[in-house]
Amino acid sequence: MDKKHLMRKAFDLAKKGKNLTGLNPMVGAIILKSRKIIGKGFHSQYGGPHAEVNAIADAESRGFNVKGSTLISSLEPCCHTHKKTPPCTDLLIEKGIKTLYYGSVDLNPKVKGKGIEKLEKNNIETIFVDYQDINDELNRGALNIIRKNRPFVTLKICMTLDGMIYNKKTKNGSIGDSEQLKHSNNLRKMHDSVLVGVETIIKDNPKLTFRGNGCENFTQPRPIVLDSNLRIPLNSQIIRLGNNPIIFTKKNNIQKFNRLTKLGCTIIKLNNLKPEKILKNLMLNNLQSILVEGGGKVFSSFLSSDMYDELILYYSSNLMGNSGLNVSESLHKEYKIKKKSSRIKNIGNSVMMVFK
Amino acid sequence: MDKKHLMRKAFDLAKKGKNLTGLNPMVGAIILKSRKIIGKGFHSQYGGPHAEVNAIADAESRGFNVKGSTLISSLEPCCHTHKKTPPCTDLLIEKGIKTLYYGSVDLNPKVKGKGIEKLEKNNIETIFVDYQDINDELNRGALNIIRKNRPFVTLKICMTLDGMIYNKKTKNGSIGDSEQLKHSNNLRKMHDSVLVGVETIIKDNPKLTFRGNGCENFTQPRPIVLDSNLRIPLNSQIIRLGNNPIIFTKKNNIQKFNRLTKLGCTIIKLNNLKPEKILKNLMLNNLQSILVEGGGKVFSSFLSSDMYDELILYYSSNLMGNSGLNVSESLHKEYKIKKKSSRIKNIGNSVMMVFK
Repeated sequence: MDKKHLMRKAFDLAKKGKNLTGLNPMVGAIILKSRKIIGKGFHSQYGGPHAEVNAIADAESRGFNVKGSTLISSLEPCCHTHKKTPPCTDLLIEKGIKTLYYGSVDLNPKVKGKGIEKLEKNNIETIFVDYQDINDELNRGALNIIRKNRPFVTLKICMTLDGMIYNKKTKNGSIGDSEQLKHSNNLRKMHDSVLVGVETIIKDNPKLTFRGNGCENFTQPRPIVLDSNLRIPLNSQIIRLGNNPIIFTKKNNIQKFNRLTKLGCTIIKLNNLKPEKILKNLMLNNLQSILVEGGGKVFSSFLSSDMYDELILYYSSNLMGNSGLNVSESLHKEYKIKKKSSRIKNIGNSVMMVFK
Repeated sequence: MDKKHLMRKAFDLAKKGKNLTGLNPMVGAIILKSRKIIGKGFHSQYGGPHAEVNAIADAESRGFNVKGSTLISSLEPCCHTHKKTPPCTDLLIEKGIKTLYYGSVDLNPKVKGKGIEKLEKNNIETIFVDYQDINDELNRGALNIIRKNRPFVTLKICMTLDGMIYNKKTKNGSIGDSEQLKHSNNLRKMHDSVLVGVETIIKDNPKLTFRGNGCENFTQPRPIVLDSNLRIPLNSQIIRLGNNPIIFTKKNNIQKFNRLTKLGCTIIKLNNLKPEKILKNLMLNNLQSILVEGGGKVFSSFLSSDMYDELILYYSSNLMGNSGLNVSESLHKEYKIKKKSSRIKNIGNSVMMVFK
């Protein structure tokens, strides 16, 4: 088995931690001895043991001695203290790991090469197998927490060619064909939470779940609702599905608070629902990547405050005309997109634009 | 000189007829004898001699005898009578042309292979050098006249990402950066007329001219204005530039008619300014390809009546918000684009979508 193949396997393991690692990165690790995989592990719980620890424990639980083995890890092992778990570097040294293949440098300034340095000093051979870009994309949420002190935000909306998101006459808000819907549903797989305004809940009553390939064994993203006046219907699908919704409100309605809490919701009362404040609170709730799905008010609010990292616009191949509700009806001044790179793609009969 | 090289030269000649051939196709021709070009010609005037005739006359005027020579023509020579000029096939036979290279079959059902047949019967060798697609693109206006009995219509508009074309607050209608403007200005080169609503003339006072490379020796497209109430200002740039504007109106204002006519305008009074009627009238005025540039009313009217062959949408990388005038403010019902193929491209900071 070549290095790259092993590293891909480590990343496949890492992905199993999707939506389970809180603010931590997803990490996968493999133990190789005499050309045989003897242990596997991934980081599967915020505050829980790291991938390396789990891989070593896996090997040992099956009767193997890891001394002299090779560890393949998607990420540089941690070396810092004063956190929930002890440094992985110490364990590797203690267990007599001989060689480390690592796929990326930990960009957390507390580690960032220091883990490797420590291992080298302790005569563990370290080999970099460059999967840095793949790691940085996979862990863009955790990285954003380190870099910007807030979750990664994808701002997404689907509209007609004339910028409409809802037909006021027919009361129809479904834009885009099945292929576009599938593509945009897939975005939910890549985020640990999906945020909408309460209008969207009232008008469309969406599930806010990922429904594509592999959705059966998938920890669904948490639904987040911005609901100034606490209007959310108690029988909304997001409440009935039990994916631990978080509802942000400005209203002090103890009775509804209690009913919603009993139904499994977390209610957060704030003086205002500005994106910056919302994101700070979501981070406190261990969420690292938010997909903001609209509607228009929420879209305009995140856009105009520049509180997003990626902007995805889908245009369906029709125009709604003057019975349409425009995407920017709540945008009170002109907004120039500041992202440098833009990508365009045909998705079914729609066009997707990505700015990041 | 190989066949393809000669054919490209014939097409270069054809293009010199841009905006001069009325409803006829652009055609170029070359006479080759003893490996030397002895004559060149192109169709340069509606009702005037064809490219082949001009090429033969050019050779003869320079003292050459064309007997036994090779004629390279971008289009199959005509063979039908009862039109402004006699059939070119007869001339080729009479002059003793030995070989014909032709780049495309004339799709006019009166010719369509019959010209070639006649030449073959008269012992002229004919060789097809396949430039059919290039000819069909170059002469899409003339072809549309044959196929749809109306000019080729390109419907083009530039808007913000939220579908706005004008800022009602700042009274600013300039959307798009210099690269986008250059790209969209180039479209004027490919049409023999540019159509706008009178609002655009009043708000922006545009020149409606092509200003790119080669514009000095270029016959500018005719400006067409839809002006129900004949509000066009007499000092508008399109009038001052003298490119023979055509103004469509519903109003019977003899005094203004006379003043506009004196200034070089053609005034056409109609009971209604529906696209179908406008296009029929433009065809009667020998125009074969119209670039419809807006504003919103004109755009919606041509769109909803399906009176276009190509739709070009430019999206600049900003949103105007709720002070914007939407592109479809005059579109009274939902419109689904029926064109099959769509192409997307980044133009500077803008995105271009083409449906055809």
